[in-house]
Amino acid sequence: MSRSKKKPADSPDDALPKAVGHRLSLYLRELQRLLSDGQETTSSGRLGQLLGISDAQVRKDLTYFGHFGYPGVGYRCDELIDAIRRILGTDHRWKVAMIGVGNLGRALLGYRGFAQQSFDLAAAFDVDQSLVGRPIDEVMVYHLDSLDETVRRLRIKLAMIAVPATAAQEVADRLVSTGIEGVVNFAPVTIQLPEGVSLIGVDLAIEMEQLTFAALNRLREDRSATDGD
Amino acid sequence: MSRSKKKPADSPDDALPKAVGHRLSLYLRELQRLLSDGQETTSSGRLGQLLGISDAQVRKDLTYFGHFGYPGVGYRCDELIDAIRRILGTDHRWKVAMIGVGNLGRALLGYRGFAQQSFDLAAAFDVDQSLVGRPIDEVMVYHLDSLDETVRRLRIKLAMIAVPATAAQEVADRLVSTGIEGVVNFAPVTIQLPEGVSLIGVDLAIEMEQLTFAALNRLREDRSATDGD
Repeated sequence: MSRSKKKPADSPDDALPKAVGHRLSLYLRELQRLLSDGQETTSSGRLGQLLGISDAQVRKDLTYFGHFGYPGVGYRCDELIDAIRRILGTDHRWKVAMIGVGNLGRALLGYRGFAQQSFDLAAAFDVDQSLVGRPIDEVMVYHLDSLDETVRRLRIKLAMIAVPATAAQEVADRLVSTGIEGVVNFAPVTIQLPEGVSLIGVDLAIEMEQLTFAALNRLREDRSATDGD
Repeated sequence: MSRSKKKPADSPDDALPKAVGHRLSLYLRELQRLLSDGQETTSSGRLGQLLGISDAQVRKDLTYFGHFGYPGVGYRCDELIDAIRRILGTDHRWKVAMIGVGNLGRALLGYRGFAQQSFDLAAAFDVDQSLVGRPIDEVMVYHLDSLDETVRRLRIKLAMIAVPATAAQEVADRLVSTGIEGVVNFAPVTIQLPEGVSLIGVDLAIEMEQLTFAALNRLREDRSATDGD
């Protein structure tokens, strides 16, 4: 996954490394699962084990935000869930726009995982007149021409871009002008946003390439290990 | 996006940082676009500019794999595309299995981006008998019981997991026993695979959370800047 901004993503002077935010999301998932399994408390060791990292890393990540554990008890799952949701900003719900309801956009409209984690798809946009004015998976489709007006009126703060690569930058620029806070770009192209608007790029084929790259690297390592004998 | 393995993902003794592999994919996308726009050559400066990184970083990444540029010319797009595809392993096609054809799995079956980058969805699997035996988007759906036999017979080397969270680890274990090389996990849970099988986790709601986290961090930074006045 690309996290592309004009500023390098993990510049050393960042107070909060991006990886910490990502791990907070992973802790939240595991805590929600533990709680739904009936576990009321847990520990940094258990969380670390579930995620394949050290207990020290878990404690260090949480220390950025305060003190959460109890001596002899560990973490109370419900309290830590609430705390992490506050830190991530998902203690209240966010409205999300989907731009482009072709193949992938339409699929994402039906994906239930967003609503479970505080994200409500509030509007979809497309240039195809035959799609406009009717809901898809209960999300109303508007014409792209009404983007600015609709996003402001519905107070939408986040957007997903699932338009063809050639249209992605223009759509992103129009979203920025509405005062949006963040964008997930699914179009297979790198787009540029100004500072102050977050951007995450998701290119599913790139993820697959990282698998084949890793598979080849294992082969290369095996060969060089054999060469060394 | 989570890249979870039992071994920490970016341990300092890795010869090839994972970020390099990811940037190779991004270079490839930009080179393909430049070439389709009629540009036969390009430079590290131009590639860096398109991706918001320095030209030195581009040259350093490529140096891991050889020498590609020509003095006074820069890179030939077609040559560099071929070279990067060889490095990533996408100079030949890979067969991919989709496990789970619910909401998200079905959407991914229709996603054209995979085929464009050398990935062929060769088979889908589900436990729902009513889906078995018929193709979805030209991909045949098999019963999960035939996973091992079908994956081996079709020589499938990669898989996407899009089953409910509770079933993901079991499905992953069964995939490992078929001798698969890599897995992209879309189920919203952290799964564990043995060394030697690559794993990438894609949780779309986690990506959204990173946007809200970043938006809140901007607010926190603004506040602390004001406090400092």
